Amino acid sequence: MDDRSKVIKYLNGGWDGVAVRDYKENDRLHRSVTRRDLLGAAQDEHGLSVITRYFEVAPGGYSTLERHEHAHAVIVLHGQGTAILGEHSYAIAPFDCVYVARDTLHQFQASEDAALGFLCIVDRVRDRPRLPSPDELKRLAALGVSPKPGVAEKP
Amino acid sequence: MDDRSKVIKYLNGGWDGVAVRDYKENDRLHRSVTRRDLLGAAQDEHGLSVITRYFEVAPGGYSTLERHEHAHAVIVLHGQGTAILGEHSYAIAPFDCVYVARDTLHQFQASEDAALGFLCIVDRVRDRPRLPSPDELKRLAALGVSPKPGVAEKP
Repeated sequence: MDDRSKVIKYLNGGWDGVAVRDYKENDRLHRSVTRRDLLGAAQDEHGLSVITRYFEVAPGGYSTLERHEHAHAVIVLHGQGTAILGEHSYAIAPFDCVYVARDTLHQFQASEDAALGFLCIVDRVRDRPRLPSPDELKRLAALGVSPKPGVAEKP
Repeated sequence: MDDRSKVIKYLNGGWDGVAVRDYKENDRLHRSVTRRDLLGAAQDEHGLSVITRYFEVAPGGYSTLERHEHAHAVIVLHGQGTAILGEHSYAIAPFDCVYVARDTLHQFQASEDAALGFLCIVDRVRDRPRLPSPDELKRLAALGVSPKPGVAEKP
């Protein structure tokens, strides 16, 4: 028996012993996002090939609009918000699942009056995100898709 | 852009377009468990290296007590129940996370009066489960750990 098996209790809006971390260190194209590494990141959980993270976006906040070669599996746990996937925008709510295919521009936005909390499952080894081009941003604007920050709130 | 990205809506206790399946086909050592393959099982989701499944155990039901070489990442979404992990038993409730390390005997039981729903994330390719030996069952009984079915309800 491998006795590293364990239960991580969810208590008072967080997980016992799991640190709340910065979403990213070197990127200011997001707002009010925290990250928790729930499963697969710890040294003693090396049996897992993926990392399950929990992201929480405060009301009005948003993740970086970006793309990468690795895919994401996302499951919403709390709140309300919007997912931008490529040239489309979707309302998302608890237990909705989101598949972010490789190379898809994507962003998660909380609504103005509710936080948005979701699981995001990714490979342990993955490529770095890339930002959209100015032409892509223009095209999204022409399509009525509204990534953040908007023109009026450039960081 | 890879336009296979998508949102799978959670509606009325299920996911839009996701079939409810049998938990296992050839094993009667479980009771009242259903499975839904949420993300990573479909042909058009090949960017994901893992499959995210949702299991629902009806009140009084339980999964098979078994072990395998692959690890599990589990996140509870609904209800109440018990996780047996090796020689220990844990109460579990929404958003608790469970790490099932490789080769750990494990079982998920719903409580008698509430269903238990949880996500279980596994590698796409994995080894087959193995059952406990009679000696292991005796040892669990001696330790006061209560896997199901019990002696009085052998299938």
